[in-house]
Amino acid sequence: MEFSSKLLEEAVDQISLLPGIGKRTALRLALHLLKQEKEHTKRLAEALMDLTEKIQYCGSCHTLSDSEICEICSNPSRHNGQICVVEDLRDVMAIENTAQFQGLYHVLGGRISPLEGIGPQDLKIPSLIEKVRQGEVKEVILALSATLEGDTTNFYIYRQLEGMEVQLTTIARGVPIGDELQYADEVTLGRSILQRIPFEEALKSS
Amino acid sequence: MEFSSKLLEEAVDQISLLPGIGKRTALRLALHLLKQEKEHTKRLAEALMDLTEKIQYCGSCHTLSDSEICEICSNPSRHNGQICVVEDLRDVMAIENTAQFQGLYHVLGGRISPLEGIGPQDLKIPSLIEKVRQGEVKEVILALSATLEGDTTNFYIYRQLEGMEVQLTTIARGVPIGDELQYADEVTLGRSILQRIPFEEALKSS
Repeated sequence: MEFSSKLLEEAVDQISLLPGIGKRTALRLALHLLKQEKEHTKRLAEALMDLTEKIQYCGSCHTLSDSEICEICSNPSRHNGQICVVEDLRDVMAIENTAQFQGLYHVLGGRISPLEGIGPQDLKIPSLIEKVRQGEVKEVILALSATLEGDTTNFYIYRQLEGMEVQLTTIARGVPIGDELQYADEVTLGRSILQRIPFEEALKSS
Repeated sequence: MEFSSKLLEEAVDQISLLPGIGKRTALRLALHLLKQEKEHTKRLAEALMDLTEKIQYCGSCHTLSDSEICEICSNPSRHNGQICVVEDLRDVMAIENTAQFQGLYHVLGGRISPLEGIGPQDLKIPSLIEKVRQGEVKEVILALSATLEGDTTNFYIYRQLEGMEVQLTTIARGVPIGDELQYADEVTLGRSILQRIPFEEALKSS
C-alpha cells in the first residue's frame, strides 16, 4: 500500500499486527478512528496502555487482576474450601457467568500439551498442590477442556494429589467433547458444575 | 461478561467500540496484547495517539498528510497540470499502487448523496473549482465510483467547470482485465461497447 502519511502507515502497521486483522481492515479501523472525536481514540490508547502497565496476576489464583489479590479471592463470602481448576481467565469468566459456583479458582495458564511443548512445569500446578497441602481445601474441581490435553492435565494433577486429604472432582461431561469451555452455553456449563463427579469415576467412563 | 479486572473490562469495552469488533473478539485481542511484550502494546497505543493528534489534511488536495502539504502535492516531479478527483484517501492509495498516474489528486471526502444527506457543500468541491480557476490545471480526471451518487457528483463538477479552459475526462469504465466477458454485468458490458476505442490505442497502453 502507498500511504500519503507516515503516521497513518505506522498506525495501520501496528493495528495489523493484531491477530486476524489484515492491512485492509487495519486501514478501515484507522480511518474510522480519524472520523471519531479525538477523545475516543485517546480513551482507547489509554485503556491499552493501562492494560499492559497496571494489570497483574492474582498472587493466589493467577487470574488477571487489578490488585495483588483478585476480587474473587479476596471476597470473604466465597468458600475457600473449594478450588475450581481452569486453564484460562476466560474460563473463570464463563463459570462466573453461570452464578453456579461460590468457591475460588485456580488458573493454570494452559494445559499440558506435548505437541505445543507445554509441560507441567509451564503451568501453575505447584502452587495448586501447595494450597491443598496447607489443608484448608476440601475439594478440588477439575474444569479443564474436554480434550486429550485437558485429560492429560487432569490426570497429572490427580497423581500429584494422591494421598492428600482432598476430594478431587471433575465437572460433568455435559460440555460437548472436543469443545472449548469458553464456548459452552451457560446452562450446560452451570449444570456441569452442579453435577460434578469423583475423578476416579470419570476415569472409569472415559 | 464477568471480568475479574476493571482494567481488562475497560480495554475490552474500548476495543469493542471499533466497527465490526464484538466483545468476544475484543477480549481475544486484549488477551493477545497481554501475552506480547509491553513494548508492542505501547507502540500500538502511541501510533493511535499520534494518528489523531498529529495527522492533518493536506491544504491542497485534502488527503491525510503528516505536513501542511502532502508528499504527493509537494513532489516537484509530479505534473501539476493534471488533477485526479477521487472520493476517498483509499482511492488515492489504489491509484498510486498502479504507478500509472503522475499528476496530483483532489480528495472530495465523499460523493453527493441526498439519501445520506451529503450535498455539494459537504464536499471539497469549491477548492477544486478555485484550483482550476487559477489556470494551471490543464486536465481534471474524474475517478469517482461508478454509482448513481458518483455520476451525480461528476455532473455537478461538470456544471461548475463549464466555460473554464480545462479538459474534463473520466476514467474508462469497462470489463475488468482478466474477467470473462460472460460474467460481466449488463450495464458494464453495454457501456464498454458504446465506449469502444481504436484497437491501436488499446495496444499502446497494454
